[in-house]
Amino acid sequence: MTNNNGWTQKSDKGILIVLSGPSGVGKGTVCSALRQCTSDLVYSVSATTRSPRAGEQEGVNYFFKSKEQFLSMIERDELLEWAEYVGNYYGTPREFVRSTLDAGKDIILEIEVQGALKVKQKFPEGVFIFLLPPSLDELEQRIVTRGTDSMDAIRSRMNAAREEIALLEHYDYAIVNDRVELACQRIQAILEAEHCKKERYLPVLQKWLEEVH
Amino acid sequence: MTNNNGWTQKSDKGILIVLSGPSGVGKGTVCSALRQCTSDLVYSVSATTRSPRAGEQEGVNYFFKSKEQFLSMIERDELLEWAEYVGNYYGTPREFVRSTLDAGKDIILEIEVQGALKVKQKFPEGVFIFLLPPSLDELEQRIVTRGTDSMDAIRSRMNAAREEIALLEHYDYAIVNDRVELACQRIQAILEAEHCKKERYLPVLQKWLEEVH
Repeated sequence: MTNNNGWTQKSDKGILIVLSGPSGVGKGTVCSALRQCTSDLVYSVSATTRSPRAGEQEGVNYFFKSKEQFLSMIERDELLEWAEYVGNYYGTPREFVRSTLDAGKDIILEIEVQGALKVKQKFPEGVFIFLLPPSLDELEQRIVTRGTDSMDAIRSRMNAAREEIALLEHYDYAIVNDRVELACQRIQAILEAEHCKKERYLPVLQKWLEEVH
Repeated sequence: MTNNNGWTQKSDKGILIVLSGPSGVGKGTVCSALRQCTSDLVYSVSATTRSPRAGEQEGVNYFFKSKEQFLSMIERDELLEWAEYVGNYYGTPREFVRSTLDAGKDIILEIEVQGALKVKQKFPEGVFIFLLPPSLDELEQRIVTRGTDSMDAIRSRMNAAREEIALLEHYDYAIVNDRVELACQRIQAILEAEHCKKERYLPVLQKWLEEVH
């Protein structure tokens, strides 16, 4: 909304998209492709206690924190979710998300299924998208093709995937990752549609209808 | 969903889109443009008691009914909405909408604001889109440019438009008709996003997860 007298189809406030799905479904690939074709989408930057690797920049790749700083962020409820992984903490700073949205920009967060549900508790106004494999067979094939897992590990990953897929009910949208470019198109369509939701227009409309004419 | 083992991104059942908005906003123009660029969208065919004009075909332009037939359709609740206009009845046959959706096709109904709200009562699972002018000034300009109305009539049309715009709250989406091709793109995005709603995938998913693997 750039003037009092009309609308543009983009509202003042951005939208948080949370992209999730089972391990192996291709979240990272879809997210990278989306980054290339959607220039005005901001990617959520995580906070972490792990050390920066060569070339990693503060505020671009991660917000690097000491363990004390991280624990104090948890304490002050400054993280939308957090988890410990191989001795390090990782989390999503609320403030970065909030200030991006307030600046009218959309932001995307790519995260595993449990983390997404934690975000939903703290930020229910987000748009939660679940990435599905074309079929369970296809998902198994993708995990096998990676070649990093033993047969037992594959079976256990597949069981985890089934449990995760059952959590789809907590999400808003389901997107099939049959082809990366189609998955991207669907996410872009969802973003465009969400910007057209009537809720975004009611406050402006109210002001507009009250104006003397 | 064409096989038991996977998804396509289009569900078995079509979606009813109801496109509405104040008089003068350009519903007809947007609908015609949409018809040209979306080949697989079916347009709702109305029933009417008025006589066919030259070239009009039964089941294509209208379903032509006698007054007795029309009144009996009302009686049997076979119309999603109906209205009388200049001595003739017009209405939306429920059966045509239902059979199109059951065949997996999307259907669009272009209708004025009060009619759309009646449809919503009988068919709440539809997707209700409200077409907005870029501004009230712009709407007034469009009505003036048509040149068919006196100053009094214009004032009364504008008051009606204000009252109609206030009904936006009963709709799902608001689309600004700043440029016809942009309005079309937004409607197509909404249609694509609605097909990705998780509700459409839960039943298939359930069946799929119960399969022995």
